[in-house]
Amino acid sequence: MTTHKPNSYFKDIEKIKFEGTSSDNPLAFHHYNPDELVLGKSMKDHLRFAACYWHNMCWDGADVFGQGTFGRPWLQPGEPMQRAMEKADAAFDFFHKLSIPYYCFHDVDVAPEGHSIKEYTENFARMTDVLEAKQEETGLKLLWGTANLFSNPRYAAGGATNPNPEVFSYAATQVMQAMNATKRLGGENYVLWGGREGYETILNTDLRQEREQLGRFMQMVVEHKHKIGFTGTLLIEPKPQEPTKHQYDYDSATVYGFLKQFGIEEEFKMNIEANHATLAGHSFHHEIATAISLGIFGSIDANRGDAQNGWDTDQFPTAVDELSLVMYEILKSGGFQTGGLNFDCKLRRQSSSPADLFHGHIGGMDHMALALKKAAAILQNDFLAEKVAQRYAAWSLPLGQSIMSGKESLASLAKLASTNNFNPQHVSGEQELLENKVNRILFG
Amino acid sequence: MTTHKPNSYFKDIEKIKFEGTSSDNPLAFHHYNPDELVLGKSMKDHLRFAACYWHNMCWDGADVFGQGTFGRPWLQPGEPMQRAMEKADAAFDFFHKLSIPYYCFHDVDVAPEGHSIKEYTENFARMTDVLEAKQEETGLKLLWGTANLFSNPRYAAGGATNPNPEVFSYAATQVMQAMNATKRLGGENYVLWGGREGYETILNTDLRQEREQLGRFMQMVVEHKHKIGFTGTLLIEPKPQEPTKHQYDYDSATVYGFLKQFGIEEEFKMNIEANHATLAGHSFHHEIATAISLGIFGSIDANRGDAQNGWDTDQFPTAVDELSLVMYEILKSGGFQTGGLNFDCKLRRQSSSPADLFHGHIGGMDHMALALKKAAAILQNDFLAEKVAQRYAAWSLPLGQSIMSGKESLASLAKLASTNNFNPQHVSGEQELLENKVNRILFG
Amino acid sequence: MTTHKPNSYFKDIEKIKFEGTSSDNPLAFHHYNPDELVLGKSMKDHLRFAACYWHNMCWDGADVFGQGTFGRPWLQPGEPMQRAMEKADAAFDFFHKLSIPYYCFHDVDVAPEGHSIKEYTENFARMTDVLEAKQEETGLKLLWGTANLFSNPRYAAGGATNPNPEVFSYAATQVMQAMNATKRLGGENYVLWGGREGYETILNTDLRQEREQLGRFMQMVVEHKHKIGFTGTLLIEPKPQEPTKHQYDYDSATVYGFLKQFGIEEEFKMNIEANHATLAGHSFHHEIATAISLGIFGSIDANRGDAQNGWDTDQFPTAVDELSLVMYEILKSGGFQTGGLNFDCKLRRQSSSPADLFHGHIGGMDHMALALKKAAAILQNDFLAEKVAQRYAAWSLPLGQSIMSGKESLASLAKLASTNNFNPQHVSGEQELLENKVNRILFG
Amino acid sequence: MTTHKPNSYFKDIEKIKFEGTSSDNPLAFHHYNPDELVLGKSMKDHLRFAACYWHNMCWDGADVFGQGTFGRPWLQPGEPMQRAMEKADAAFDFFHKLSIPYYCFHDVDVAPEGHSIKEYTENFARMTDVLEAKQEETGLKLLWGTANLFSNPRYAAGGATNPNPEVFSYAATQVMQAMNATKRLGGENYVLWGGREGYETILNTDLRQEREQLGRFMQMVVEHKHKIGFTGTLLIEPKPQEPTKHQYDYDSATVYGFLKQFGIEEEFKMNIEANHATLAGHSFHHEIATAISLGIFGSIDANRGDAQNGWDTDQFPTAVDELSLVMYEILKSGGFQTGGLNFDCKLRRQSSSPADLFHGHIGGMDHMALALKKAAAILQNDFLAEKVAQRYAAWSLPLGQSIMSGKESLASLAKLASTNNFNPQHVSGEQELLENKVNRILFG
Repeated sequence: MTTHKPNSYFKDIEKIKFEGTSSDNPLAFHHYNPDELVLGKSMKDHLRFAACYWHNMCWDGADVFGQGTFGRPWLQPGEPMQRAMEKADAAFDFFHKLSIPYYCFHDVDVAPEGHSIKEYTENFARMTDVLEAKQEETGLKLLWGTANLFSNPRYAAGGATNPNPEVFSYAATQVMQAMNATKRLGGENYVLWGGREGYETILNTDLRQEREQLGRFMQMVVEHKHKIGFTGTLLIEPKPQEPTKHQYDYDSATVYGFLKQFGIEEEFKMNIEANHATLAGHSFHHEIATAISLGIFGSIDANRGDAQNGWDTDQFPTAVDELSLVMYEILKSGGFQTGGLNFDCKLRRQSSSPADLFHGHIGGMDHMALALKKAAAILQNDFLAEKVAQRYAAWSLPLGQSIMSGKESLASLAKLASTNNFNPQHVSGEQELLENKVNRILFG
Repeated sequence: MTTHKPNSYFKDIEKIKFEGTSSDNPLAFHHYNPDELVLGKSMKDHLRFAACYWHNMCWDGADVFGQGTFGRPWLQPGEPMQRAMEKADAAFDFFHKLSIPYYCFHDVDVAPEGHSIKEYTENFARMTDVLEAKQEETGLKLLWGTANLFSNPRYAAGGATNPNPEVFSYAATQVMQAMNATKRLGGENYVLWGGREGYETILNTDLRQEREQLGRFMQMVVEHKHKIGFTGTLLIEPKPQEPTKHQYDYDSATVYGFLKQFGIEEEFKMNIEANHATLAGHSFHHEIATAISLGIFGSIDANRGDAQNGWDTDQFPTAVDELSLVMYEILKSGGFQTGGLNFDCKLRRQSSSPADLFHGHIGGMDHMALALKKAAAILQNDFLAEKVAQRYAAWSLPLGQSIMSGKESLASLAKLASTNNFNPQHVSGEQELLENKVNRILFG
Repeated sequence: MTTHKPNSYFKDIEKIKFEGTSSDNPLAFHHYNPDELVLGKSMKDHLRFAACYWHNMCWDGADVFGQGTFGRPWLQPGEPMQRAMEKADAAFDFFHKLSIPYYCFHDVDVAPEGHSIKEYTENFARMTDVLEAKQEETGLKLLWGTANLFSNPRYAAGGATNPNPEVFSYAATQVMQAMNATKRLGGENYVLWGGREGYETILNTDLRQEREQLGRFMQMVVEHKHKIGFTGTLLIEPKPQEPTKHQYDYDSATVYGFLKQFGIEEEFKMNIEANHATLAGHSFHHEIATAISLGIFGSIDANRGDAQNGWDTDQFPTAVDELSLVMYEILKSGGFQTGGLNFDCKLRRQSSSPADLFHGHIGGMDHMALALKKAAAILQNDFLAEKVAQRYAAWSLPLGQSIMSGKESLASLAKLASTNNFNPQHVSGEQELLENKVNRILFG
Repeated sequence: MTTHKPNSYFKDIEKIKFEGTSSDNPLAFHHYNPDELVLGKSMKDHLRFAACYWHNMCWDGADVFGQGTFGRPWLQPGEPMQRAMEKADAAFDFFHKLSIPYYCFHDVDVAPEGHSIKEYTENFARMTDVLEAKQEETGLKLLWGTANLFSNPRYAAGGATNPNPEVFSYAATQVMQAMNATKRLGGENYVLWGGREGYETILNTDLRQEREQLGRFMQMVVEHKHKIGFTGTLLIEPKPQEPTKHQYDYDSATVYGFLKQFGIEEEFKMNIEANHATLAGHSFHHEIATAISLGIFGSIDANRGDAQNGWDTDQFPTAVDELSLVMYEILKSGGFQTGGLNFDCKLRRQSSSPADLFHGHIGGMDHMALALKKAAAILQNDFLAEKVAQRYAAWSLPLGQSIMSGKESLASLAKLASTNNFNPQHVSGEQELLENKVNRILFG
């Protein structure tokens, strides 16, 4: 991979380098300087960028209303394993030229699913060998692996929540294989996204039964992790709907209740996707801050939705203002542990040239790097933390402490309030002032 | 109350009676026949209708863009306690003429809040006496009481989640008074709706701290309930936003996680409001079925939103199709226990005549009664339950039982699937067929 | 087609017949009785039902997250024209057994598009012969034809609004062929839906230029219609977005302004789709009533969206309440002229059996028939029209007439108002009363 | 107004000055430097900022769920004209200290509406004198005036679209008075916002009749403008809903069709509000670009909505990225003529200190100034215009010109395409590349 392949799909693209803000080269980083230190840690270690296999390598630009527009050679008809090899070549060529340290995949992204469990298992094993070799060759690392339990028709009614226990078993097979492969490839996390774990209509659905199935499935995942000694993090990726009418892992708060019910809240973190947050009626910032406040934040699928379109558009992240607040929350909470920033992003269907794949990711990486720098700037003179500390200061005083320590009752507080004729007045929240201050850091 | 008040605001309205479907009288029930038996229980006992004090008696038709249009006499300027008495007269005259068995109120709906805790307490105590007398006189019962922790400016930044512990204490005072009054008036439930328990901007908010405050507050509510021997049900009413940007009691699934965190999931049920469900991105049917599946369903605020308008329109329920499915879920789960159907509904601002208050409620009661009859009709030959039973049947067979009993692992299932070469095929979910069958019952 | 094909895909389905509400047969009509008279006209002539080629015959159940689940034999790999013939056999077998009088198609639904304009033209001509023969054989008629200007990659940036005039010319070629075929097959309308006539990003888009292109294109369509003597109606189908970020034919009101700008408002009517209305932020009822009020109502794509999902779900219509109001508006305006009710509906992806195609349409037809009967019932004692007449009655009195006839100015009215000390009071709009009355007709 | 009032409500605030980006003073401008030249014109002349009377001076922080939190002294109970005088004092003190060149008002913002047309007229006349004196004293100018046809209960069912012609006449009276006052005060525009010109339910509404009324009303406004010689611009402000279920002036494209129908498209421009755009399902950028492309762009109500809340939150604009694109469109189209940037913004209800009013506006002005500078930076090396020019270049070549000049027909193009075997290929739209380039200018 260190040599330039003259006939590769990306033959016209050189390895992307940092050239700084003065450069006009669109095929260079202007803000992402991997080894530049921010708050004493390199950008690369802060951001832990990953590119994904599926949107970049497995999608040809088709949508519900039209055929593919990209014409990727490895997606043309052909012998499946041969095409999978070509796809892996293209993928690692792309990852390498993009100078991105991590990648992510589903089992069936990298290997043909075949026509039986046996074929699936063999194909996946062979391709795991290929990936292992390519990782070694390039130095690329695996941020996380996962299993696709939603594309094959057998999963039309879900994987773990399917009415048919044989489908549940098939799903278990895939997850086991994908977890094993992830461990072998040194993956730092394993992700579960419940693509069709939800319902199309309540009329034919037993909500309690399906929830029990999903709970048991997740417990098995935990048990398998410990059995094989996988030391990475298990991640659940919430999404409210699409493809189903309603998905059980609606958002972080919903998943938290689910984890508590099945006693596995210490075993899972969240993989938060920006566009899933907005589909659920939340801002990206909200979902990150909520997961952190619940102690279940893990990793990010960095992308964005369209504020006017009601489906998962998976665009590359550009909103540096919100991204800065997201990075601020993450830095304040100690930064990524095993998680990172995976670009779960699709090109627009009209962006049909090979270079567009680079433009999308370069933008994503530069905008996240900018967000990191802006977040660090806020932290260095943290007026937000100061405002919060001052606003809740009274909770460290005797009355507040007495309440929170469990010493007070409604009656004791009522007596206190009445005796002292409490008449508390509202104090300005100063939202506009804080917004101005944030924007002054964002725009200098 | 049994005598007709010649000068009352509702003097032109007679007590509403059941006249059946052949009657053309708009001021009569056409479907709600209180003592008619449905599945062996009277409609009245099934439906447990309540009217609310706030929208009917405390709102004059004002909205954000305009002044009141209703001209209710008891809302004109005047001596507050005198006006509160007139309001109570009008309220009970209205409830009585509406032939509704229950009502609901906030503390400050019925009594002036005064200018101090002392005045608040005295006013509320006097009005509790008045309500008690009126209940006795009319036979009306209290479905639930609650405290308003959102209208007074002191609650601009929340009640239990306020940065100021004195506001928390004020909120505790009101809730204690309202719980005590609810107990004294024989209320069958006590409701907590977190009007401003949420945030306007994350910039000045400590999510974890506010959640801890809310958790402690709810624990105090539980402790007080047991201390005073209140035997009714504690209810939390989820709502996702409005008035705040985001409210912590977003939806049933979110509240479930909250209850689990603070160890109070056995102490609370949900009061589900239709319009809150839709603001949260769910159907009303979804929220009901979800709460039932989690074992936390309690009561209903029956109304509807507008599918095109993004705020709480609180319209009277008219969608018999969805209401029938809601009643089907409730009947299947055993029916209301202490809960009931409270009309948390506002007239449209243009519906300015006294009769409109009756039209709204008569429609609401008739549509719910229709929904009850339709639900009973589904239950009597329950093709939905049959479909569900058949669809999940395999979970009662050995493989399914082995999985759910915890005997299987990912590895054991993978081995089984591989050995037996599982190749499960999707079976039609028959959604369209089920929808047709439901509609044939709805429309005869 | 009158003989039963023993090996057809639909071999287990008999021709669907009306059996009335007492029948339990799900493969029968319970309300749609083609020759039953409603307000003196047969249901068949009122409703003018059509089934579509695309969702029924060209879609195999794939969505963005998964492969097809239906397994239609004619969609398997094979020689394109052979498959097109098999598809036509299946289509007409289906239409015939469904007892539906009309169908609709896109050019490339019925014929392979080939690899050149020549192949496209020849394939389409051959299949037009086939369709003509099948129409004759079965008595089926064509409600409308159209051309697909959105699926082929050449249309990624639009058809008429494409930056490349050669694409515009290709689009013109297809529309000409499709209009000619529609005329030859006796089609009663010709539809234009601007699948990708919109933008993905304003950054690379010249809104004015694209609008001019679309305007000129539509003028050409009008000119061609007159040139070939097509006597059917030209229809534009509004949709706000999807697949593009924004589509120029956003809704009826938007299209009206477009038609006025290019002087073609007398030449086009609207084909209103329910799910497109809701994606545009309107109710279906709104779009129908608006188009009628602007004099541009033409035809309907009957389906429904999901109130919680933000994309075009194209479900079969079930909401008899709203459908009744839609039929009421249409009946009041004189009923369909050349238009009709086309089911632009997709099965749910889980509804994978051949029978499901029938269940979907039987439900759709029965629900529209019910809506027709309910609408007729409202009309027979039209309290809605009466309320409206009474509400606006003053506009027929001298002041109202003087204003509307253009005799008054702001100044003359100000003088009149001041001299007479006008103090008009709001009168109740009685919305709840009207809603109750409508529901009493809907539910008896 | 040039002297400092020691007891004014804003006594702690000094006149806001430009201090540049290095200043830490939150009560200073950091980007808005009125006389700084951008593209050869002063910021002040580019931006034409206005503050509004209503949100700043007439609103006390009440919302649907709670009482006012601001405690503005001039809004306390008192003699109406006395309070109006105090309000005007506070308003001009505020405007002056804010260093904003323009203001805007509704008739009843500035004068008590009284209890009759006579009182209304007299009060408004007296307050117009007051405003005139204050304008002279301070140098403040009027960007636009308007009339409030939605707050008084008489307008519950609309102003111009009311079923009662006397209400129409009352509305005409107010608009005449407000237009006359606007002319006298040197207002540069006159705005019409149809607060309740829409419907609550189609059941009681005659859409065609109401549209005709609105059309005639707007024609009268045009006639009156010419009669009195008002040389400013007439502006319509689109909004899709709220307070009504649906408003007729839904968005720019809808209003364009309305203007065309009544032949007044040359007489009106649009006053585009950001939050109204988003409520209508559009981006702010879209509405601006659309109005410009239709030749009807006039002025802006600068604010923003909340992407997760479905009502008009009217927050101060902070999104410099979108604002830059908006300013880019405006600069490219020649800049504001008579229009300007009015802050139709509300403080958050928790922002209860006098200083918050300044923080909101300072932020708004600074963010718009930043947007102006960023837009100018794009224009100076306009890669967006370059991309657009190159993308549509073929429309200037023979085929494109022939099509647009009307020389071609569907048939002539089909022949050309067939003869030349057109096979046009999609070319990348490079959306991600353009987004990156824009962001590099936004963030340096």
